[in-house]
Amino acid sequence: MTRFPAPEIKDLPDDIRARILEVQEKAGFVPNVFLALARRPAEWRAFFTYHDALMLKEEGSLTKGDREMIVTATSAVNHCLYCVVAHGALLRIYEKKPLVSDQVSINHRKADITPRQRAMLDFALKVCTDSHTVDESDFTALHAHGFSDEDIWDITAITAFFGLSNRMANVTGMMPNPEFYVMGRVPRNKG
Amino acid sequence: MTRFPAPEIKDLPDDIRARILEVQEKAGFVPNVFLALARRPAEWRAFFTYHDALMLKEEGSLTKGDREMIVTATSAVNHCLYCVVAHGALLRIYEKKPLVSDQVSINHRKADITPRQRAMLDFALKVCTDSHTVDESDFTALHAHGFSDEDIWDITAITAFFGLSNRMANVTGMMPNPEFYVMGRVPRNKG
Amino acid sequence: MTRFPAPEIKDLPDDIRARILEVQEKAGFVPNVFLALARRPAEWRAFFTYHDALMLKEEGSLTKGDREMIVTATSAVNHCLYCVVAHGALLRIYEKKPLVSDQVSINHRKADITPRQRAMLDFALKVCTDSHTVDESDFTALHAHGFSDEDIWDITAITAFFGLSNRMANVTGMMPNPEFYVMGRVPRNKG
Amino acid sequence: MTRFPAPEIKDLPDDIRARILEVQEKAGFVPNVFLALARRPAEWRAFFTYHDALMLKEEGSLTKGDREMIVTATSAVNHCLYCVVAHGALLRIYEKKPLVSDQVSINHRKADITPRQRAMLDFALKVCTDSHTVDESDFTALHAHGFSDEDIWDITAITAFFGLSNRMANVTGMMPNPEFYVMGRVPRNKG
Amino acid sequence: MTRFPAPEIKDLPDDIRARILEVQEKAGFVPNVFLALARRPAEWRAFFTYHDALMLKEEGSLTKGDREMIVTATSAVNHCLYCVVAHGALLRIYEKKPLVSDQVSINHRKADITPRQRAMLDFALKVCTDSHTVDESDFTALHAHGFSDEDIWDITAITAFFGLSNRMANVTGMMPNPEFYVMGRVPRNKG
Amino acid sequence: MTRFPAPEIKDLPDDIRARILEVQEKAGFVPNVFLALARRPAEWRAFFTYHDALMLKEEGSLTKGDREMIVTATSAVNHCLYCVVAHGALLRIYEKKPLVSDQVSINHRKADITPRQRAMLDFALKVCTDSHTVDESDFTALHAHGFSDEDIWDITAITAFFGLSNRMANVTGMMPNPEFYVMGRVPRNKG
Repeated sequence: MTRFPAPEIKDLPDDIRARILEVQEKAGFVPNVFLALARRPAEWRAFFTYHDALMLKEEGSLTKGDREMIVTATSAVNHCLYCVVAHGALLRIYEKKPLVSDQVSINHRKADITPRQRAMLDFALKVCTDSHTVDESDFTALHAHGFSDEDIWDITAITAFFGLSNRMANVTGMMPNPEFYVMGRVPRNKG
Repeated sequence: MTRFPAPEIKDLPDDIRARILEVQEKAGFVPNVFLALARRPAEWRAFFTYHDALMLKEEGSLTKGDREMIVTATSAVNHCLYCVVAHGALLRIYEKKPLVSDQVSINHRKADITPRQRAMLDFALKVCTDSHTVDESDFTALHAHGFSDEDIWDITAITAFFGLSNRMANVTGMMPNPEFYVMGRVPRNKG
Repeated sequence: MTRFPAPEIKDLPDDIRARILEVQEKAGFVPNVFLALARRPAEWRAFFTYHDALMLKEEGSLTKGDREMIVTATSAVNHCLYCVVAHGALLRIYEKKPLVSDQVSINHRKADITPRQRAMLDFALKVCTDSHTVDESDFTALHAHGFSDEDIWDITAITAFFGLSNRMANVTGMMPNPEFYVMGRVPRNKG
Repeated sequence: MTRFPAPEIKDLPDDIRARILEVQEKAGFVPNVFLALARRPAEWRAFFTYHDALMLKEEGSLTKGDREMIVTATSAVNHCLYCVVAHGALLRIYEKKPLVSDQVSINHRKADITPRQRAMLDFALKVCTDSHTVDESDFTALHAHGFSDEDIWDITAITAFFGLSNRMANVTGMMPNPEFYVMGRVPRNKG
Repeated sequence: MTRFPAPEIKDLPDDIRARILEVQEKAGFVPNVFLALARRPAEWRAFFTYHDALMLKEEGSLTKGDREMIVTATSAVNHCLYCVVAHGALLRIYEKKPLVSDQVSINHRKADITPRQRAMLDFALKVCTDSHTVDESDFTALHAHGFSDEDIWDITAITAFFGLSNRMANVTGMMPNPEFYVMGRVPRNKG
Repeated sequence: MTRFPAPEIKDLPDDIRARILEVQEKAGFVPNVFLALARRPAEWRAFFTYHDALMLKEEGSLTKGDREMIVTATSAVNHCLYCVVAHGALLRIYEKKPLVSDQVSINHRKADITPRQRAMLDFALKVCTDSHTVDESDFTALHAHGFSDEDIWDITAITAFFGLSNRMANVTGMMPNPEFYVMGRVPRNKG
């Protein structure tokens, strides 16, 4: 990220600084994407508004684990180090499966996931690489696993949004925080 | 768009309806993307906020024609009918070149554009298809044409954002308004 | 076309000049391919004899619109600016559909064409990119739409011939005449 | 070739029959392409006129061995059994090198050919698969080996013409005559 | 092979020299792979032990012709001149079909082989290029032709092992002995 | 691995059982590859002899970390879950870098490795996917980083051998032991 230096938190607009401090409070560190994009406040606001609309919404049948699984699998196709590592961490935590992120990012066909999740990822990867070939047969395959048209919109939108994120991270050289690599792999210390 | 029916303008939230009516006033019709995405107001707001942050900003050396050229060329790679046709229209108008959109979308190497624009499109297409391979040599090549690092961020972000848009349009079956196909190809009638 | 300058019409052999003047009479201009290839009279004669045998023949069930649609779609895959623009114009005229050429060249799956034409293009694109994998299942799929084996030969031959044309145009830098870009997009003035 | 049965020689138009008998006289057998395409006399005439204009012409610096080498190498990329086997035979004979056809069709980089021929094949393969990316640097590389612009036209046209031939052979299931497989591999019996 | 010169037979360890002399005795010449890899005795021993375990074993339903057919077809995909030529020779001999090696290496879909062999090659080519996508449907397709799971292991292992061999030959520039090119193409002289 | 059930350790030939117990003693568990391949003792012996010849040898300038880095990066290209996870663990341990395996398997261009290792991986990935295009320029690039021709043989052989391993693991459904996923990511408990 040397070409595009991140700003100091103290220099950021109030709304952005507030959100970043909130994340830091919750996670114990500031994920680099929050700082890297903050160089451009208008883009930052649009990015996180979009992110929240897709990833924090309550509607639909996609669980938080499903959503992070889509992000992890499609970001691997796009060779995005930041997103595979950061969202792989969230995937492990939401799914409570310490091995699933590596499985999904290396070869989702071998992953210990449900047939429904397998169908979801098959579709997400098609949207990621060949969205122009999506047709009725893809909808039918997903309906067979209980996905509604609205769920299909969600899978598409999450894939599309993180495709944007992958390209920004790849070109700007965004690096994942070291904390993400191990998060959710080992039981937390308690006490 | 039969699976994902567009809402009626009258049923939309005030802010969205206002923007749509404003566009209609200016263009003489409502581009379908404004209605297609309005089914989801939260996503609509994020989408157009992001769009405006990239496409309407005053900073940087990219002209409006440059930006629409990036959208047209990369959307062609993604086989997005909506974006090639709609943004190809804007490109013709901003560049005042009735032939340029077809040239850029079929083979930008044969297009009647400046060497600077050629370098810009070479990079945008790389971000579109192989962003993980971008490295210093790409920055150097663009600097040689007078692009700054901030301009490179802009090219990347526009490519990334419309890659999102391309995937949404492809999966939802968004069709360009007939008006776009011919816009900017022939002199306007004056009265 | 600077490396391979076109000859003057007046310097051409009689048969070639006659054909070119006839085309000019009919179209109002000389399509560049007629001049670009005329540098080599023997090749010119073979090229247009082949062209006419495939595109002007009366036999078979392919309409003139069907044939131009094959040319437009496969030339887009080969990124041939000349053929997409020139034959896209003919396609619009024969099909009387001002939007169809852009649809077919950007993503034929989204085009407003018949299921029979869709099957025809699916096959033509396979011949264009992976002809060695064509097998019985492709014939069966086309028979289901009423295509005979002779029609399949026609689709193949048209795709193959314009693949030749695409490569010649791409390497020699053949540019479409400006007239083609707008032809068939707007109603003709009548007087 | 069961779908597209070849006609009997005796039933063919005089000019076609004459040429075929002439070839048979010279080669000792009738190469299948002459019969397979004769189902369509108009296309047959155009095909062989084009063929002769490119392969039998005296002008230019490409030897007959060079031309057959282009055909063999590009037909291998198109997985055309007929053309690799038939033109590989001619290549062995013209170059007087019994091993060269297998080398060129499997990996021309390992073939026992001249640097000039290597450059010629590098370009032909680019025309075969990515003709839209050909640019000035390709012309410069070929000029360095003594190829003129007219030679480059020849390489392009031969590649383009046999790309047509490859697609026809692949779809119609044209099979090479058994005689071709071994021709030029072993010294002829003399007597 | 100039970068990696082959050792003299006389300088080799006894076991390696013995095997090589045995092969020479049987074939009339020493296939280059035996010498090229002998620069590294430990790797040589592992390589030929592996080779023999797969290619000389008696168990399973794959004939020696089947095995050489797998090697020839997959080595063609990897553009390995040495393996296509050397194992194509063995294929012709075991199958007693002088044309089959060229057919299988150029386009196995056009080869004069059994449907069972066609299915075997379809699978081998998938293992060669996309092994991560192999799934139950591939096993089912092979079972339908009488292949057992152990046979499928054999097809996989042969493809995998010669993929190793292809890469070694390609990088070290291993050239096939001239004898291989014509072996099995013409009837042997008897006397 | 249900189709190809692993044998019981007690039922294995003495030499194989001894090696497996030795590995178990050292690692604390038996890596699945040792059992999965033991169904076929002859292949097992060849596989591990080859493995040891490449991975345990003392000669040459490749460190153990370098070798595991090659395995991890090329196995990721082949989407081999077993090898990326198992050898990624060894890579982290040998390099003493807990983050390096994820970096190398997702995008080695972003990895925290030396320029020499970057060049090594660039070459290994080329051998993995396009070995037939390797030429003198690749040797020159590696020499510039101090690699000898023997080192280049090593990089090639390691890539080639694990390409074999990847295909076996992918088709047989070999799953990495859970222990590998976290190994080398966190400091060992000391007592």
